[in-house]
Amino acid sequence: MTHDSADTDGATDETHTDTISEYEAQLNAVLEDIDETPADESDVSLELPTLGLNRRDFMKAGAAAGVMGSLAGCTSLAGSTNSGSENTPHSSSGDVPSHIVPPGEHDEYYGFWSGGHSGDIRIYGLPSMRELTRIPVFNPEQAKGYGFDKKTSDMLEEAGDYTWGDSHHPSLSETDGKYDGEYLYVNDKAHGRVARVNLTYFETDAITNVPNVQSVHGCCIQSPDTEYVFANSEFRTPLPNDGRDINNPDKYVSLFTALDPESMEVLWQVEVDGNLDILDTDKDGRWAIASAYNDEEGVEIEEMTKNDRDFVKAFDVPAIQKAVDAGNYKEVNGVPVVDGTKSSSLNKGDNPIVRYIPTPKSPHCVEVEPNGKYAMVAGKLSPTVSIIDIEKLGSASDPKDTIVGQPKLGLGPLHTTYDGRGHAYTSLFIDSQVVKWDIETAVNSPKKSEDAILGKIDVHYNPGHIQAIQAMSTEPTGDWLVVLNKLSKDRFLPVGPIYPDNDQLLYIGNDKDNETGGMELVSDHPVYPEPHDAIFASKDKISPAKTWDAADYEGEKEYVKESNSRVERIDDETVEVYTSVKRSEYGLRDFTVKQGDEVTLTATNVEGSQDIVHGIAIPEHNVHLALAPQDTRQATFTADKPGVYWVYCTYFCSALHLEMRSRMIVEPRE
Amino acid sequence: MTHDSADTDGATDETHTDTISEYEAQLNAVLEDIDETPADESDVSLELPTLGLNRRDFMKAGAAAGVMGSLAGCTSLAGSTNSGSENTPHSSSGDVPSHIVPPGEHDEYYGFWSGGHSGDIRIYGLPSMRELTRIPVFNPEQAKGYGFDKKTSDMLEEAGDYTWGDSHHPSLSETDGKYDGEYLYVNDKAHGRVARVNLTYFETDAITNVPNVQSVHGCCIQSPDTEYVFANSEFRTPLPNDGRDINNPDKYVSLFTALDPESMEVLWQVEVDGNLDILDTDKDGRWAIASAYNDEEGVEIEEMTKNDRDFVKAFDVPAIQKAVDAGNYKEVNGVPVVDGTKSSSLNKGDNPIVRYIPTPKSPHCVEVEPNGKYAMVAGKLSPTVSIIDIEKLGSASDPKDTIVGQPKLGLGPLHTTYDGRGHAYTSLFIDSQVVKWDIETAVNSPKKSEDAILGKIDVHYNPGHIQAIQAMSTEPTGDWLVVLNKLSKDRFLPVGPIYPDNDQLLYIGNDKDNETGGMELVSDHPVYPEPHDAIFASKDKISPAKTWDAADYEGEKEYVKESNSRVERIDDETVEVYTSVKRSEYGLRDFTVKQGDEVTLTATNVEGSQDIVHGIAIPEHNVHLALAPQDTRQATFTADKPGVYWVYCTYFCSALHLEMRSRMIVEPRE
Repeated sequence: MTHDSADTDGATDETHTDTISEYEAQLNAVLEDIDETPADESDVSLELPTLGLNRRDFMKAGAAAGVMGSLAGCTSLAGSTNSGSENTPHSSSGDVPSHIVPPGEHDEYYGFWSGGHSGDIRIYGLPSMRELTRIPVFNPEQAKGYGFDKKTSDMLEEAGDYTWGDSHHPSLSETDGKYDGEYLYVNDKAHGRVARVNLTYFETDAITNVPNVQSVHGCCIQSPDTEYVFANSEFRTPLPNDGRDINNPDKYVSLFTALDPESMEVLWQVEVDGNLDILDTDKDGRWAIASAYNDEEGVEIEEMTKNDRDFVKAFDVPAIQKAVDAGNYKEVNGVPVVDGTKSSSLNKGDNPIVRYIPTPKSPHCVEVEPNGKYAMVAGKLSPTVSIIDIEKLGSASDPKDTIVGQPKLGLGPLHTTYDGRGHAYTSLFIDSQVVKWDIETAVNSPKKSEDAILGKIDVHYNPGHIQAIQAMSTEPTGDWLVVLNKLSKDRFLPVGPIYPDNDQLLYIGNDKDNETGGMELVSDHPVYPEPHDAIFASKDKISPAKTWDAADYEGEKEYVKESNSRVERIDDETVEVYTSVKRSEYGLRDFTVKQGDEVTLTATNVEGSQDIVHGIAIPEHNVHLALAPQDTRQATFTADKPGVYWVYCTYFCSALHLEMRSRMIVEPRE
Repeated sequence: MTHDSADTDGATDETHTDTISEYEAQLNAVLEDIDETPADESDVSLELPTLGLNRRDFMKAGAAAGVMGSLAGCTSLAGSTNSGSENTPHSSSGDVPSHIVPPGEHDEYYGFWSGGHSGDIRIYGLPSMRELTRIPVFNPEQAKGYGFDKKTSDMLEEAGDYTWGDSHHPSLSETDGKYDGEYLYVNDKAHGRVARVNLTYFETDAITNVPNVQSVHGCCIQSPDTEYVFANSEFRTPLPNDGRDINNPDKYVSLFTALDPESMEVLWQVEVDGNLDILDTDKDGRWAIASAYNDEEGVEIEEMTKNDRDFVKAFDVPAIQKAVDAGNYKEVNGVPVVDGTKSSSLNKGDNPIVRYIPTPKSPHCVEVEPNGKYAMVAGKLSPTVSIIDIEKLGSASDPKDTIVGQPKLGLGPLHTTYDGRGHAYTSLFIDSQVVKWDIETAVNSPKKSEDAILGKIDVHYNPGHIQAIQAMSTEPTGDWLVVLNKLSKDRFLPVGPIYPDNDQLLYIGNDKDNETGGMELVSDHPVYPEPHDAIFASKDKISPAKTWDAADYEGEKEYVKESNSRVERIDDETVEVYTSVKRSEYGLRDFTVKQGDEVTLTATNVEGSQDIVHGIAIPEHNVHLALAPQDTRQATFTADKPGVYWVYCTYFCSALHLEMRSRMIVEPRE
């Protein structure tokens, strides 16, 4: 098994003579060492860097697939022992601010986690890392009545009527490059969807089922003023996917989609070569930059990883908009689709709408640094990060010349974040480490990656996304960083065969000349599968409402006063029930319907006090509404079984909460 | 509005002359004081006790309803200000062990939280209070594929096919009075259901839809050896609830149900007067003791709270079993229903099957102390806890003589827990406090409740359940206590109109002669709505499996090896697809079906390594399976749309996770 020297246009100018078997042998030696000293896992990870970066070169990806598969997860490192981790030392130099938020005090930052295949957004406080709430997005969720009341169930139904989703990349709306606290946008990788969360009410208020795409992966707003929301479709499918071309993979396509952030309507799409992956934009409203893989356009893993390179796509957004405005598109399912493939006439000449920038095989992510100068493309299968000079995207005649640095950082680099002091932090999936490095040194000393590396710290285990506070905006704070580790193995009490992930909090406020470059591991946090990414904002950026404003929904729904609680029979099989809700009391003490009636229940929480939420549960009818103060919700159900059903309040609201009930009487029909 | 002196047989021997208006005036005075000093809320609560317990007597409940409703939640305390809480001092005497669990170390205890109307069980580590995982129970949940794979979706369908549930009271199986780590049982208040969680796999493995009942509220195992699981139906409904007696509330009934903990079959039910509420058992296998309200058997709140007293029910389990064995029951929907009403012949004579013990109106809970001597019944609308001497349940000729103490503790006592050192801790919902008191002093000095009170501590706000470590077993540890507060108001960063609850951790290991009796508030934890109750076990008590054991399911499902991945066409409209799953690779790289086919997908995770979980997602088909190592799951769906669909892995499993895919090709039909 020979590891050919890599042919990576613009990727690196060193030669690569390592073989996979040599690489394997080195790793095996490390693993054998580990087996002999299982008691202290910290030693294990500290050993790994001493293998030397110069021996961890770019692997020819196709041949590496098997090795990566067997190594990935580093399962052998932990094996099935559980005792090792308890001896892991927890060093703290004493100059790290406390991450403990005492009772009654508030966190400094909001964290917005995407819940992965839980489909939700989770809100954390930092630095305490306490979960403040969850916002159901693609997942019907009973506690908040999401997908149970008419408004949200209609929204989910219109967005494809899917019972789940896979939320990956949350993006906060910006004004002038700063988070403005209005909205959060997030993709659904399980379907071609993009959702918007309203940050006044902390509720999902729109979901768009994007035509022509099966899986939205990368997703972000356009910096600095949220003029677009962009969405990458990852999976290549026939266009449209209606049964044509099913056995003709050459005709499958991947699309870059632009949405209107207000209306959430799809504006246009751009067809490209390969599978699009993750996405970020520059800070000036021109470039959207996407990682991509499978330039081979294969359908099996060996085909997808056959070549040595892939191409990052840089979308010239004003140029695309101009093409659309000029009618240079075909329309598919009502959407203008612009040809952005390499062979497109729109990509010929001096002003291509999409630039194809060669990088080592299967890069994973693109993150633009806060000052907008560089975009970092982590290598995943390559130990490098490719540094793209954004200014050169518009000027370089050869796209590969936009890559101005390519430091070798370690095995499995996936994501990069920033502290605003010129440092980048990259997660190393296979090494289970975070590497801190100096950006300008990496650019200016391209031959000596070691000079750029400021330190490494072990994380536990197999980190995916990492994110520092406000690093996706122009205002990074440079104090805390969260590493989202995919595996936790022995870090927590066991909870059965499905393990939690492990989010780790690092303090990065101290730059030091030590092994970690000053990074300190502060705390471990088990998390329900599978938080994917996170984005953080200062508490001053977010101003949620404490109650609903009835005026917000005027005309859309009926506010039910106590005095107006009533039952209206529409026809022999249709009944409308209206009830107010307040502590201890529903406006309707009871109501009678007939077996088989379709009942529409409308309920208003007439209270004005914060934190006084009421529920309406109807046993055996799949009805549960959650009513915050001044909110009105509706549910429609069929009263199909005669009998007595006790409507009760699910939010513990008063000392007489238990007695807070209404009685639905369903009269038998003949 | 006159507050009559309470007529509470056996409830208290003091006279009560306070009026509601007097009570209201006192509270208003307190609230006015609070308005003047909003900056420090700790002062607010500290003021409250100085009102004097002697002025906070038993309130005639019917008349009190309005007051309680308006006071409940103590909304006026916080109003809409947000600034006050940040000044709350956090006192720590320095002799409290750290609740921080450093990275790599394990918690000491498991906590099992019921998720309330989230319908799940949540697993926490204590003292860190980190959520380790969640176990979906009554809620279909996508991340673990619960309700998505055949096994769990069939279980949910057979248990009523409801889309949600309301889990309230978790109970751990015991052997010899000690938690044995086998099972956890929990009720569904939204329906008449009881579920069992298997603590080897941390997965719900049985749900029983109990006949004849609409809402199971109280639920617990029988101590000391889990010979039964008991379930109280709270709502009174016609028997059976099939359209008969709908307007005849006198004929509505509430039932006490016994289930077999192994088969989860319903064994028998006992009809009683009033609405059953919460439940605990003695430690000797004889008595199950239930709180109850609405002895009036009214249907509206004023009717339910008209009288001054209610009756705790003590079920003599062996006597009931004897009556069942002797055929003294009627059968309803296949279940033997024994008459346990006051007027039943089985309750005449010296050995009634159910004893009716008078207490002040609407008591809330029953908790038996760890040594099995006393059962505490918190007053809710009465400021007292009634102490039942369990030994006297079998000997006292008058049931009221079983009450051997009734200390007045504060406003809104709801739940009691224990430290094993002779102290009880009772949550005070309206006072927003926990009171620590000495049990034997309360029994021996019945006229002077003050002597029994050892201290009070403010909690934030409106506590429901409280629970100390292993206090429901015979092995309390007496170190940590969790208070589940229903409102959090200004304790956390705001997250929109639906607030988190607030679980607070107290250290109770120090007995001190100070204001709090040594209790110290350690940490605040926001929680998603609406954790209802919790139960804690030492980490040594629980031994979860790290992978599935394929042998456990032999015969029930097919283990799909890599070599056996295949597609089998059953008939023109039915296809069976079998695939193995391992890192980077599905056994089937692609498979083809025809439009309209019913497809049954069977998949096995063939890996043996812990923490290597794989998902199977099929976009646009509502398919998501979560496969832990050695697990096999099935999903059935209709391939209704022609096209190409990319099956992908949702658990980030390796560096080539992104490339881990299969391709479902759906051929168009003519």
